[in-house]
Amino acid sequence: MAQLNEVDFPPNLSCLKDIDTLLRCPICFECLNITMMTQCSHNFCSLCIRKFLSYKLLCPVCNMPSTEQDLRNNRLLDDLVQSFQAARQKLCHSNLESPPISPQT
Amino acid sequence: MAQLNEVDFPPNLSCLKDIDTLLRCPICFECLNITMMTQCSHNFCSLCIRKFLSYKLLCPVCNMPSTEQDLRNNRLLDDLVQSFQAARQKLCHSNLESPPISPQT
Ligand SMILES: [Zn+2]
Ligand SMILES: [Zn+2]
Ligand SMILES: [Zn+2]
Ligand SMILES: [Zn+2]
Repeated sequence: MAQLNEVDFPPNLSCLKDIDTLLRCPICFECLNITMMTQCSHNFCSLCIRKFLSYKLLCPVCNMPSTEQDLRNNRLLDDLVQSFQAARQKLCHSNLESPPISPQT
Repeated sequence: MAQLNEVDFPPNLSCLKDIDTLLRCPICFECLNITMMTQCSHNFCSLCIRKFLSYKLLCPVCNMPSTEQDLRNNRLLDDLVQSFQAARQKLCHSNLESPPISPQT
């Protein structure tokens, strides 16, 4: 949860915010961790959705009936989380090294 | 197919290449278009995998038995393709406007 507000993008990288948002779990708001997809195509961390389904057999996003047996690994999401975090680090780093030329100069 | 080689990232944005590769369909090599996931968690354009399965009931990536009925929408991938394309355009554009400071200057 705390993680969500910690991530600030410099103005010239703000276009990465949408991708960051999409790659977060709707339960814990952290980056998806071992992504599982429900039958209704919603994605969660494996632990988050399993814990949720142990209380209610519903998708937390759309309320469709859901069971643990219906869950399917969404490994491409895990790969995307990793590649995105690496790219973000590199871009934010190179951003600090060469700040954008301000219009006044 | 042709699309694949057309996409060149400027050196300082080369870290986006991995994300670009992950968001492509293993059949047509274009960006995923209406992403469908097999039971074995591999992703393809809807048209590409349906056409393939009409010939062979196997996943083209891992050869696991697959049917059209097993396919599941992977809509988050479609959203990621859109956000990534928007971000790439903005980053490459702002890149042209302010070229990196060369070490000689
Ligand atoms: Zn989670
Ligand atoms: Zn749902
Ligand atoms: Zn395709
Ligand atoms: Zn497969």
